[in-house]
Amino acid sequence: MFESAEIGHKLNKLEYEAQEPSLRIQLLEVQEDLKNASFPVIILIGGVDGAGKGETVNLLHEWIDPHYLETHAFGAASDEERERPEAWRFWRVLPPKGRIGILFGSWYTRPIIDCVYGKTKVGDLAVALMQINAFEKALVDDGALIIKFWFHLSKKAQSERLKSLMKNPDTRWRVTDLDWQHFKLYDKFRRTSERAIRTTSTGEAPWIIIEGADRRYRSITVGKYILDLVSKRIAIDNAKAIKIAPSPVQTNNSFTILDTLNLKQSLSEEDYKRLLEKYQGRLNLLFRQGKSLGQSVILVFEGWDAAGKGGLIRRVTSALDARDYQVIPIAAPTDEERSHHYLWRFWRHLPRSGRVTIFDRSWYGRVLVERVEGFASEAEWMRAYNEIVNFEQQLHEHGTLLLKFWIHIDPDEQLRRFQLRQATPYKHYKITDEDFRNRAKWNEYELAANDMIERTSTEFAPWYLIEANDKKFARIKVMKTLCDRLKK
Amino acid sequence: MFESAEIGHKLNKLEYEAQEPSLRIQLLEVQEDLKNASFPVIILIGGVDGAGKGETVNLLHEWIDPHYLETHAFGAASDEERERPEAWRFWRVLPPKGRIGILFGSWYTRPIIDCVYGKTKVGDLAVALMQINAFEKALVDDGALIIKFWFHLSKKAQSERLKSLMKNPDTRWRVTDLDWQHFKLYDKFRRTSERAIRTTSTGEAPWIIIEGADRRYRSITVGKYILDLVSKRIAIDNAKAIKIAPSPVQTNNSFTILDTLNLKQSLSEEDYKRLLEKYQGRLNLLFRQGKSLGQSVILVFEGWDAAGKGGLIRRVTSALDARDYQVIPIAAPTDEERSHHYLWRFWRHLPRSGRVTIFDRSWYGRVLVERVEGFASEAEWMRAYNEIVNFEQQLHEHGTLLLKFWIHIDPDEQLRRFQLRQATPYKHYKITDEDFRNRAKWNEYELAANDMIERTSTEFAPWYLIEANDKKFARIKVMKTLCDRLKK
Repeated sequence: MFESAEIGHKLNKLEYEAQEPSLRIQLLEVQEDLKNASFPVIILIGGVDGAGKGETVNLLHEWIDPHYLETHAFGAASDEERERPEAWRFWRVLPPKGRIGILFGSWYTRPIIDCVYGKTKVGDLAVALMQINAFEKALVDDGALIIKFWFHLSKKAQSERLKSLMKNPDTRWRVTDLDWQHFKLYDKFRRTSERAIRTTSTGEAPWIIIEGADRRYRSITVGKYILDLVSKRIAIDNAKAIKIAPSPVQTNNSFTILDTLNLKQSLSEEDYKRLLEKYQGRLNLLFRQGKSLGQSVILVFEGWDAAGKGGLIRRVTSALDARDYQVIPIAAPTDEERSHHYLWRFWRHLPRSGRVTIFDRSWYGRVLVERVEGFASEAEWMRAYNEIVNFEQQLHEHGTLLLKFWIHIDPDEQLRRFQLRQATPYKHYKITDEDFRNRAKWNEYELAANDMIERTSTEFAPWYLIEANDKKFARIKVMKTLCDRLKK
Repeated sequence: MFESAEIGHKLNKLEYEAQEPSLRIQLLEVQEDLKNASFPVIILIGGVDGAGKGETVNLLHEWIDPHYLETHAFGAASDEERERPEAWRFWRVLPPKGRIGILFGSWYTRPIIDCVYGKTKVGDLAVALMQINAFEKALVDDGALIIKFWFHLSKKAQSERLKSLMKNPDTRWRVTDLDWQHFKLYDKFRRTSERAIRTTSTGEAPWIIIEGADRRYRSITVGKYILDLVSKRIAIDNAKAIKIAPSPVQTNNSFTILDTLNLKQSLSEEDYKRLLEKYQGRLNLLFRQGKSLGQSVILVFEGWDAAGKGGLIRRVTSALDARDYQVIPIAAPTDEERSHHYLWRFWRHLPRSGRVTIFDRSWYGRVLVERVEGFASEAEWMRAYNEIVNFEQQLHEHGTLLLKFWIHIDPDEQLRRFQLRQATPYKHYKITDEDFRNRAKWNEYELAANDMIERTSTEFAPWYLIEANDKKFARIKVMKTLCDRLKK
């Protein structure tokens, strides 16, 4: 795989000087066009120490306007990063649409290093690489252009390079003990990297291997790749190419899992009060224990309008200390959120250790309201199921406890509640014409909800279906479910 | 000062039950109105341990819709927080317009505790309190409603409270060793708090002292204060009360400090190349040394359109490693930025230890373009000088190195450059009609720039005026200034 990057590609001074000025101008022009484009450019820089990664990135900062170029290097994680799933630190710096982000070191670094140093097994690497593929696919599907450069040096070239850097007093500082330590493991590094590159050179985001020995060659080559790939992508963007939708996979069950719920279940006022007190006390204790263990918790509430999500959330939060939780209502995204992948706005609210985040509506909007109202194309919501399961798997693997509740009522009960809200002065604001419009699409929403439950109920993050025609019953069922899960 | 909070205010059950339901409804209604208001509500919770702070905040979360209420407690700072000025952790969680943010513990906690424990002197406390006043004034001037509650207990009441919490197995966990340790210092705490409250009970943001012994009394009292203050503020907001502008303080110097610059200074190509190489080498070394010391650096570039800021920034960044800096171009704010104080968008970009942030235009837009174009009222830009000096002082005290450059050219040179840009294909996009419109206001901008330099050049953050009719001269002067300052 690396053979073609060991054949001594070179560019002499004259060739370089003939190409560099026009390349620079073209890069500036394409960057200008990019500002109005509907996608971000994510450039990953990986490879062998001493192969000119840093120099190339610095050169790109000279060539491209650094105002619209962000470079992020990933050293040791901060405590705020360690307390969230590993991908959080990458999500928080992904460039918005119209920008170029260079990631120096990336999601590849840790899995490769860990494998080379024997901290993890080859099987772990395989799993990590599959997750990376899913992650990159989600970004590309959302429009991102991902350009992955791997800078390569042969063993001989690397040793020469490190020695020559050491000789010059001006560059000696760049060679660290770690570099030599890595060099000793050259062969293992090479094998592991090759495996990583092979597995993750997907159609959406292939690797580009750059022979790093000659400064002029690698600079011009990297510049040309960027120019070429970004220009092509802009052309597609401008043509607003019609995406070929996958053949529709619709569940046309007229009888859905939601129909199996017995909505007649209810609780007497007396039982309710007794049980509420019991479970709130228990919840409070469990949350406190969880906090002392650093357990982070995410609760998701989805369900029909007027299903009683707000009241439910208040019953849960009264068992919590206000210092430990945030309720995040999901409404229209801000413009910063709109300029990123749709999952970005949820990543930014992930709780730190010992904290609780409660989402009132969530990322499932993608496969519910966005699907039914046509805000997301069929291709978009179809692939969202997988993206969401991947996201939730990362939460699970990090140790975050995720509970998802679908709060279910029937159409008659909804109508009754709408009318009640209209009649109650301080609840009046809660009801708008839109609520009635949504109501008219009950069947479509029901189908969407059913598909969602089928496709995103996993063993690590099952959906809990809550019969909520009787609010008291629903509240107690949620509290009890919470207690049972927290206990585990 | 605390006498009136030791007289045993009480509310019996009947009184409480008579008032609570209507108070809750009114709070929900006022919160609904607040969503459309143009200001945030910041509630600070401070006071004696055991005086019911936590219980009250939890109660407010039951009374008010927690979807639009954020509570933030401040424990130990994260490493990302420690690497920035102390106020950063508060700025990052300030609520946007239309929301209520409760800060549990706040900018008062550290100064008071440090003084009680003898870590700092009384003089330090006085300085900290003055800074707090300036900070709160800046928020209030921007429209924020700040409500500060101090929960008080007499020494006897505190001791009783802690003991009774200890007795009950359900509440014992709430009393920590730290609480008892604080109790031993009750008198010192009381004196210090009294001093803090006295100094910071300003017209803009007075303290409200709440007697904390009786749960029902303190709950209803806090709720009523919030209802009353938010309602009144909304009424003013709706009336769009005309602000009384301070009497205009205009500098009408026809001869300004900018006129004293000798714009004829220039450098030969030869000298330029030699000096550029020399200073870039030196800068690179100095930045690396600074990085290893954890020194964070902020560079601000302001100046006329086409003064050459972009080229200057590129000359500086080529001495830097792309992994260590970010260039932040300041254009129109995002909607999240618009919903906060105008300084918020700059706080969010402060560099961590060892990093460099370069602002191409900056917070000085407030007193330049916003002043001249009338985007900020006279009262707003007049007080901005002080707000900015305070902000920069915090950077200085944290140890961040801040350098501010004004890049100066004359109108003839600007015209020449505009015409050149129009004639150069890949620079064409840099010139718009707006540039010519701004040009027509040269005198007003010059006056604004002059005022800015006069009022915000401080010993810890002086303005460096750069004669830039000759780009080469300007670049070398900036590089040299940077080297000199970094060396120190």
